[in-house]
Amino acid sequence: MATDPTLAASAKRVIADLKELAQLTSDANGAQRVAWGPIFKKTRAWFAEKVKRELNLDIHLDSAGNQWVTIPGDSDAAILVAGHLDSVPNGGWLDGCLGTLSALEILRRYAARPNKPVTLKLVDWADEEGARFGRSLVGSSAAGGSLNIEDIRNLKDREGITQAEALKDCGVNIDRMLDAHKELKQINAKAYLELHIEQGPVLESMQKPTGVVLGTFGVERHTLKFTGQAAHSGSTPIPMRRDAFLAAAQFALAVREIGLKYSKPGANVVCTCGIVKVEPCIVTAVPGVCEISIDQRALNADVLANMLKEAKEAATKAAQDNNVALEWKKLWTIEPRPFDPKLIALAEDAVREITGDAPKLPSGPLHDSAEMVPHMPVIMMFAYSSRGLSHCKEEDTPIEHLDQTLQAFLLLADKCLANVAAG
Amino acid sequence: MATDPTLAASAKRVIADLKELAQLTSDANGAQRVAWGPIFKKTRAWFAEKVKRELNLDIHLDSAGNQWVTIPGDSDAAILVAGHLDSVPNGGWLDGCLGTLSALEILRRYAARPNKPVTLKLVDWADEEGARFGRSLVGSSAAGGSLNIEDIRNLKDREGITQAEALKDCGVNIDRMLDAHKELKQINAKAYLELHIEQGPVLESMQKPTGVVLGTFGVERHTLKFTGQAAHSGSTPIPMRRDAFLAAAQFALAVREIGLKYSKPGANVVCTCGIVKVEPCIVTAVPGVCEISIDQRALNADVLANMLKEAKEAATKAAQDNNVALEWKKLWTIEPRPFDPKLIALAEDAVREITGDAPKLPSGPLHDSAEMVPHMPVIMMFAYSSRGLSHCKEEDTPIEHLDQTLQAFLLLADKCLANVAAG
Repeated sequence: MATDPTLAASAKRVIADLKELAQLTSDANGAQRVAWGPIFKKTRAWFAEKVKRELNLDIHLDSAGNQWVTIPGDSDAAILVAGHLDSVPNGGWLDGCLGTLSALEILRRYAARPNKPVTLKLVDWADEEGARFGRSLVGSSAAGGSLNIEDIRNLKDREGITQAEALKDCGVNIDRMLDAHKELKQINAKAYLELHIEQGPVLESMQKPTGVVLGTFGVERHTLKFTGQAAHSGSTPIPMRRDAFLAAAQFALAVREIGLKYSKPGANVVCTCGIVKVEPCIVTAVPGVCEISIDQRALNADVLANMLKEAKEAATKAAQDNNVALEWKKLWTIEPRPFDPKLIALAEDAVREITGDAPKLPSGPLHDSAEMVPHMPVIMMFAYSSRGLSHCKEEDTPIEHLDQTLQAFLLLADKCLANVAAG
Repeated sequence: MATDPTLAASAKRVIADLKELAQLTSDANGAQRVAWGPIFKKTRAWFAEKVKRELNLDIHLDSAGNQWVTIPGDSDAAILVAGHLDSVPNGGWLDGCLGTLSALEILRRYAARPNKPVTLKLVDWADEEGARFGRSLVGSSAAGGSLNIEDIRNLKDREGITQAEALKDCGVNIDRMLDAHKELKQINAKAYLELHIEQGPVLESMQKPTGVVLGTFGVERHTLKFTGQAAHSGSTPIPMRRDAFLAAAQFALAVREIGLKYSKPGANVVCTCGIVKVEPCIVTAVPGVCEISIDQRALNADVLANMLKEAKEAATKAAQDNNVALEWKKLWTIEPRPFDPKLIALAEDAVREITGDAPKLPSGPLHDSAEMVPHMPVIMMFAYSSRGLSHCKEEDTPIEHLDQTLQAFLLLADKCLANVAAG
């Protein structure tokens, strides 16, 4: 079938907007749109002006500081298109704003239509990155209702300013943030669409410009402490040792095998030992203590539970084999957030139409979309990420891949609007 | 055969001397006989007074600060009996002085004999520990001729005092230290005997009070740097990773297998990975860099060379298997110093006569005796070391084991004197 020729023009417009925003809010070290600060405010003013000028619509700020733009339709059945304009310090030109500015283009395209059978809503989430206070997904978790206000009230930035004070400076009363959830529940949401840069190397390795996201990983994050006995490296025969590091080494290699065992094409699980610390950490001493972290992620909750169970068995065996003690400490967990199967199928159609193929992959990083999964059908698409680089000025999607990605995402929005309109 | 009843009395005398010295030179934190300081000087004054009073002999200080006491014999064929009176700060009651004070008893026993066919020399080595300036075996390496004066001249202690200044304060001219080597070469040395606490758990594990030492280990000490690529733990599939830590883990486990492969009863080799450092060392990042140390020790030079070769092969394979780069850096090496086979056999006889068995074991730590190996037949014996604890106030040999050890060592000296006298 012939591709809609307006998609190419739309993609060009989004890329022009992205470049304009980068020009306005980046310095030599990258994007500086850290939430709640002066460049973030400048970004939002630029966006509001654009919405007003091009769509003659006003921004609605919900009680958590999220920006909403609504094109009402004949039905209250709504499609949400989302992104976040905030960035990390020294960030890239696409992380977050690719979503918001492609959503703006979806609104432009819909606004130009003579008939509007359904409602279309853009949401620009506030403080996705958590770069200043350390808590990410602030706006979306308030809207999703999962935010615990007391967890963030007294978080402080480097200058000692609290999260509550920074929010107040942007017109947000921290004690009213969860009103955003009540507001969200009023929406008759039929679909949520978000486009983001992958922040990983999967699409690059496949040489594919874009892919359909299956969901965000569930995460099990723990630290283990193996405790043996420090001993002189010269005077202690190997069979008499209680080497805590060798227990950890055995464990780490077993954890990789567990990850590989459950890996499927598209890489639906990962397992990582990122922190390794030994004591006394001197060349002439057998390590008496080794702390090691484990971070396991999977799209399927049962798979995640099995991986954790097998990691615990592997740790126990490593401790026994090396005659050392073992303690586990939980750091953080979150359940998997799989996306909507019908929307996944629809996105596959759109991506295949534009690129000839429809790769599917999970999301390792969390996204605002995860907060919406309990409340509505959700789908995301990823854009190719050069060298997998993220949260740095080198972050990039080459223009030809970005163009294809945008055309596919805009086509997905068209398909979704048509589907919802058809009931 | 019946055991010489004077051995038990001699052992008691040595234990009394050890207790007297501990009383004089220890505080609540342990022994404080750090070389060249005030308590070290006090120790030597106590020892000189004892030698003068009991043997009517004077101490001879060689140009490196080692103390010599000589009982001339009919022949210049000489037996050396040795130890060191210096300790680490907060040290144990036996490390070093067990050798010097058992040597003193050997002189007492020989002095009491009517006939003295051979020459007997006690040597109390200076600054075996290197606790103040960081260079161990100072006195014995000067006498052995291996000391490079320029390596130590400008070493400084915590107060900024140089090694040269501290030596001068004790009557040693650093530029004349190697004259001690000339002096040593004048001795017609037929045997060198030294008793030391094991500083390891081998005799304890065998439930044996004492053992015959086979020699001091050769050491290969290196650091390896595995360099892969740091990556996001959520977005990087396992097969695409270049995990530097997993390469190091694979290497460390292989190094233990190499050590076990070459281990024989008595533990003639050890291999240790003591330092492990990963970067960036955060829970959500695949380690991009891992530095790991290797310390390999063996009594046999060919075995040591083979172990190093196999470790290098294992490291190369670990780097290839994990798609990471590898660099080696040499830290320190020393060749093995095996002891004299005839003296080992003689010591086995003595130990077996007293204890009923003659366990043999290598020395992981270096000792002054290693410096004498190139110049004369050398033997050491070890005393049982409770829990393998060393360089701490908890260091101990239970009295019943110490008694057996001393009786065996004194018997070895008797046998050695008889053998040398017999030519």
